[in-house]
Amino acid sequence: MHGQTNTFLVADIGGTNARFALFDASGEALALAAQVTLPTRGQEGFASLAGQAVEALDARGAASAVLAAAGPVVRGRFCRAPNIPYLLDLDALPEGLLPARALMVNDFAAQAHGCRILGEERSLGVLPGRMDPGLTQAVLGPGTGLGKAALVPDGRGGYVVCASEGGHALFPCDADEEWRFRAFVLERLGEPHLRREAVVSGPGLALLHQFLTGEALPVHEAAARMTPESPVTRWFARFLGRACRDYVLETAARGGLFVSGGVAARNPLLLEHPAFREEFLASPTMAELLAGVAVRLVTDQAVGLWGAAALARGLAAA
Amino acid sequence: MHGQTNTFLVADIGGTNARFALFDASGEALALAAQVTLPTRGQEGFASLAGQAVEALDARGAASAVLAAAGPVVRGRFCRAPNIPYLLDLDALPEGLLPARALMVNDFAAQAHGCRILGEERSLGVLPGRMDPGLTQAVLGPGTGLGKAALVPDGRGGYVVCASEGGHALFPCDADEEWRFRAFVLERLGEPHLRREAVVSGPGLALLHQFLTGEALPVHEAAARMTPESPVTRWFARFLGRACRDYVLETAARGGLFVSGGVAARNPLLLEHPAFREEFLASPTMAELLAGVAVRLVTDQAVGLWGAAALARGLAAA
Repeated sequence: MHGQTNTFLVADIGGTNARFALFDASGEALALAAQVTLPTRGQEGFASLAGQAVEALDARGAASAVLAAAGPVVRGRFCRAPNIPYLLDLDALPEGLLPARALMVNDFAAQAHGCRILGEERSLGVLPGRMDPGLTQAVLGPGTGLGKAALVPDGRGGYVVCASEGGHALFPCDADEEWRFRAFVLERLGEPHLRREAVVSGPGLALLHQFLTGEALPVHEAAARMTPESPVTRWFARFLGRACRDYVLETAARGGLFVSGGVAARNPLLLEHPAFREEFLASPTMAELLAGVAVRLVTDQAVGLWGAAALARGLAAA
Repeated sequence: MHGQTNTFLVADIGGTNARFALFDASGEALALAAQVTLPTRGQEGFASLAGQAVEALDARGAASAVLAAAGPVVRGRFCRAPNIPYLLDLDALPEGLLPARALMVNDFAAQAHGCRILGEERSLGVLPGRMDPGLTQAVLGPGTGLGKAALVPDGRGGYVVCASEGGHALFPCDADEEWRFRAFVLERLGEPHLRREAVVSGPGLALLHQFLTGEALPVHEAAARMTPESPVTRWFARFLGRACRDYVLETAARGGLFVSGGVAARNPLLLEHPAFREEFLASPTMAELLAGVAVRLVTDQAVGLWGAAALARGLAAA
């Protein structure tokens, strides 16, 4: 493949999986042409990861590339991602591996663009209310970490993305039994502060399972044990509802909330549990605002790739 | 005063004080022509408050009006502010009291615009780091409540304001002694959840003084008792540092943070205390990002009025 001006290479690099894809814009609309998922960990480094992806997708010659990474991105070039054991640096890749027009963005900035493009059709209604792109909308997703972003109207019919590293802000406990869970998590992780993503994430779900049952299980097994009646489901639904409520308040996202990320998409029972709704609406002062906000569950885990592809198309045209 | 096309009426209506001002743009730059401060409480209602202000400032005939209110504003017309005992509704005012071109905005949206206009010259450096309007910048201010807003670059040299109601999100405790303070605050307020603004605000400062000393004092007296050595100063500096850190993370505000609001402006010892800096930087994962963010203390309490005036000038010209 050489010099394909209508083809874009994109990636969504999380703490566990790195998805790469080729998108094609030779027709009227963007189309997902090919996709490959590689493990993020156990790689020699970023160059090795990117090299494997470019080879697997035969992606040399793409018009542009947009790589989304799970961490704070500096000047669109590099990211020291807290859950990835090597530096992601576009300028340290072998010359010619990626197109000259290449950009790195935060993974939830890409998710946000993807939700704006695909959100309504690739998601399920969780709570009723307003879903209005003319007002601020938010995206939140638990996975290896906890990603967030907000889509803020620019007053001219468009929007800008307000990125977030709020997964690293403190998680607020709200009952004595949660305060005991906090002590358990801090001891297990050897951390001095309870970050939001230590609780509202796949690893947080596994820790919660261990706290409530005594069993230490890998994340996917802990998730597989959840039933609508199990305490793990009730607690995690409450924690997720709180994370959603607090982020909607932090960003005054009166136009709706998309919940994305692997943990939510694979376990819809978390959002269906009454504890999610109860906690989302629990506010002595802002209950009316919160009741007006629609919540939707993003079912398509490629939504971040679509967002990156939209950015890559813009980059190629710039 | 009639039909003064270069005069704008603005307001900054908080839970305690309502500041009104006339700005004049007949010279090259905006100028603050007159100002009046009225108590927000103890008014018959919004019409009475606005009527007194218009009379005191002789403001009939202004070209436009922008009223900033401490709460979520709906469609630029009204606000049910959680700390104000009456509805703020532009459409319920007597006809002709305000100019036809009138708009209501969130108070911290106005603060954010004001910080962008005046921030560097009307503020003092608290922590070194980057203060860069090309990146997201944040504003946070404890007063009667806890206001926040973020200035997000639009990619075209301008910015949009991401509003916030994050003062109503949960406050995260981070030590057993803080968990005991939580129980004290919830019992005093009769609330089921510990909102951020119940702690990081003037009333929160008074409750903290009572918790640590046993004395129940009005806010200004509790503030007057603070010395650089007192435990109240240390605890509140830590709480304020945490609120600042978490909001910088929630909005990925790598371009700097302005701290405004009456409690901070009148008590600079809170930001000078080592506990503020220690807490702002305390993060096992994001310490590097946080160390790069400048923090400044806004000393001019009229900064919200200036922001509203800039909006009013734009409104008159539209």
